[in-house]
Amino acid sequence: MTIKYLLKESDIPKQWYNVAADLPGGVLPPLGPDGKPVNPQALAPVFPMNLIEQEVSTQRWIDIPEEVLKLLLQWRPTPLHRALNLEKALGTPAKIYFKNESVSPAGSHKPNTAVAQAWYNKQFGIQRLCTETGAGQWGSALSFACAQVGLECKVFMVRVSFDQKPYRKFMMEAWGGKCVPSPSTDTAFGRQVLAATPDTPGSLGIAISEAIEAAVSDLSGKTRYSLGSVLNHVMLHQTIIGQEAQKQMEMAGDSPDVVIGCAGGGSNFAGLAFPYVREKIHGKKIDIIPVEPASCPTLTKSPFSYDHGDTAKMTPLLAMHSLGHAFVPEAIHAGGLRYHGMSPLVSQAVMDGLLRPLSIAQLECFEAAVLFARTEGIIPAPETSHAIAAAIREAKKAKEEKKAKTILFNFSGHGLLDLSGYNKFLSGQLVDHELSDDDIAKSRKCMEGFPSPKDVAARLKA
Amino acid sequence: MTIKYLLKESDIPKQWYNVAADLPGGVLPPLGPDGKPVNPQALAPVFPMNLIEQEVSTQRWIDIPEEVLKLLLQWRPTPLHRALNLEKALGTPAKIYFKNESVSPAGSHKPNTAVAQAWYNKQFGIQRLCTETGAGQWGSALSFACAQVGLECKVFMVRVSFDQKPYRKFMMEAWGGKCVPSPSTDTAFGRQVLAATPDTPGSLGIAISEAIEAAVSDLSGKTRYSLGSVLNHVMLHQTIIGQEAQKQMEMAGDSPDVVIGCAGGGSNFAGLAFPYVREKIHGKKIDIIPVEPASCPTLTKSPFSYDHGDTAKMTPLLAMHSLGHAFVPEAIHAGGLRYHGMSPLVSQAVMDGLLRPLSIAQLECFEAAVLFARTEGIIPAPETSHAIAAAIREAKKAKEEKKAKTILFNFSGHGLLDLSGYNKFLSGQLVDHELSDDDIAKSRKCMEGFPSPKDVAARLKA
Repeated sequence: MTIKYLLKESDIPKQWYNVAADLPGGVLPPLGPDGKPVNPQALAPVFPMNLIEQEVSTQRWIDIPEEVLKLLLQWRPTPLHRALNLEKALGTPAKIYFKNESVSPAGSHKPNTAVAQAWYNKQFGIQRLCTETGAGQWGSALSFACAQVGLECKVFMVRVSFDQKPYRKFMMEAWGGKCVPSPSTDTAFGRQVLAATPDTPGSLGIAISEAIEAAVSDLSGKTRYSLGSVLNHVMLHQTIIGQEAQKQMEMAGDSPDVVIGCAGGGSNFAGLAFPYVREKIHGKKIDIIPVEPASCPTLTKSPFSYDHGDTAKMTPLLAMHSLGHAFVPEAIHAGGLRYHGMSPLVSQAVMDGLLRPLSIAQLECFEAAVLFARTEGIIPAPETSHAIAAAIREAKKAKEEKKAKTILFNFSGHGLLDLSGYNKFLSGQLVDHELSDDDIAKSRKCMEGFPSPKDVAARLKA
Repeated sequence: MTIKYLLKESDIPKQWYNVAADLPGGVLPPLGPDGKPVNPQALAPVFPMNLIEQEVSTQRWIDIPEEVLKLLLQWRPTPLHRALNLEKALGTPAKIYFKNESVSPAGSHKPNTAVAQAWYNKQFGIQRLCTETGAGQWGSALSFACAQVGLECKVFMVRVSFDQKPYRKFMMEAWGGKCVPSPSTDTAFGRQVLAATPDTPGSLGIAISEAIEAAVSDLSGKTRYSLGSVLNHVMLHQTIIGQEAQKQMEMAGDSPDVVIGCAGGGSNFAGLAFPYVREKIHGKKIDIIPVEPASCPTLTKSPFSYDHGDTAKMTPLLAMHSLGHAFVPEAIHAGGLRYHGMSPLVSQAVMDGLLRPLSIAQLECFEAAVLFARTEGIIPAPETSHAIAAAIREAKKAKEEKKAKTILFNFSGHGLLDLSGYNKFLSGQLVDHELSDDDIAKSRKCMEGFPSPKDVAARLKA
């Protein structure tokens, strides 16, 4: 019996898959302060032009440069595992597979886009990248990638995670990156937030504002901003996950009925799911599930809207599910899922009826993570535990219904830098947080008066 | 250009290699309190008989049970990487390969023997294992393995590492293991040490004594002790590393001139090196280097002697290089290399002239580790950094001599649970520790009057 389905280095996908070419509802453009679609040139102070081209591209397949492939080959292709021990523990007739993205040097899927972004910036003559990080997965990944191609790296880390996970800073430093807690005194916006709310746990929205400010305020023009999720080019870079999984499921002589990934900004979910979204668009029956925390229910409880990607409203308006750019979520351990918005491409796929979003609270997720660790061995990141909890729900349903079923989920990262969360869970110190409808209505107030996606779509058609 | 040489699951070695069958000088037996070779039966309260049989075996190849192979396949075979970026950074004509044992769930080579030991104990009807751990790699690995086969696990962790690396405890707990700092109040010997030296940083020797006491004092007979290094059966289980590496080097169309591993108790070194020791015995020219810390120079500065494996003198006398069973090393970050003794098989191979031991101080090792992290991406364990430092020395020598050379080292584990060491190194808080000859003479006093290996060998011959 095979446990891991392994590809050869030569099997690595040579192109990224761009779902924007296939989404039946089309993709709504980002809007500027004037309510009109943003000219790509307007993004030039923030991103290098080669990545902006990818961001706005609707080309279905985009070649991966040879040098980026070489960077990816340091840990890719990643294994696809059959979770035989977990299946046995659950007594389920379902087959459970997981794609193991935890084998990268930074321990998650994040380096897939980090090495690509670092390489494109380097090609464009950039010397320094600024970014934000939630739980630290992205900041670590970008620090790693910058060391690989020879760029400086500065990371604004959401303060609650900075305090919960001190090793993340040390990790970034080992790769030569700099990491400060956000809000920080290094930016005007950070100082403003600190003055108003000195005890704020921070948020990804705030940290993004700081990182963008730090990038655009370097007048040498040699600094750019880098984002680890949400944007189209990030989703694009992650699609090698799903393309590899397709080949590996074929090796296993199997095909998934259910595809699952946790979703904060959407990138690991999209990475696994978009190649399967393409299969679904072409008629295959697949249940595709993004899983988010109950304390940050972007897809499950917030309407599709135009909103800013950051708290200081420095980004254009993006068409996405959003809890409001001023939203500051509870300090749950899945720091990477604490984002107020969601990838516009994932949001659009939900609007197109291609996905079935789900939210799960943290205790069920940690319970699933501990069961996974004790059966399959690898200790999951708290973010990843959301995908595992959903996979376990599906496996239990199959058991009740006495029905065979093939479940595939993305094991987006390991939890070796998040062990204090396990300690707190196992010693009974964690509780669930659920947002009330009132809380959500309040947090969405900051979006009042923003254009509606429906109106924008109609206007663009006319 | 290939970066990783990957084996298929079906390529996993089906037998362990026992170097005891091939060492030209033979292997000296453990001695009991009466100075006579220990009867295997005398070890029965400590280990299950199936492992004792392996411990004393001189059979060259020992079959790996099907069920143990299944456990190993959760992460094996491990990749062999060509360190192209490191080579480039060094500007060396040498080719550098490393065997990546960091991909196991516990992040090191330790699970190779942990799953085997847990499985054999379970087969023998044991319900609970007690062990010690230095840096925490072994305690984590055994907790993981016990979760896999369904055993309880208790770990005595050397206090200095327990304090330096709090996440290790959380990691063991995530797998259901229990972890206490050693010396502890849970054993008579621990209480005795604490009474005499309340501020002791602890040592592996002390922790081993506690774990053995905890095992043999369970009168139900359902508890045994498990050791993560030093003993013959542990070296045996690790030889899958070198056997895989041999196949992978063949895939690369290459063959190592130099084979390197860090050495504390000897197990990761032996795992990679012993299959190459066999090649060397059969006439191949290979420079095989165990690397130890300058602050614990067992192989490089201590004679081959009979000494106890633990501080309380509960183990038989073992023929090995030893700094003395009462030795308490400096609190260096490579906690896994802070052992007073050395595997008898590794020690014997040194006596047989098959190995060239080397000691390196901690600052050079951390510098090597940071260079490795920034070129090859993976952050090394402080233990592993000793092998990297030696590989870099060899690569620089090749550069000076303008000579091609193939270097293979064991990347025994990642440093994601040891990041505070990197933080201290990068902020200039670490210093080197070197033992003086006086210190060594003093620490070896506790061995006065013990039989000499030479005499024992002569007596056994007669």
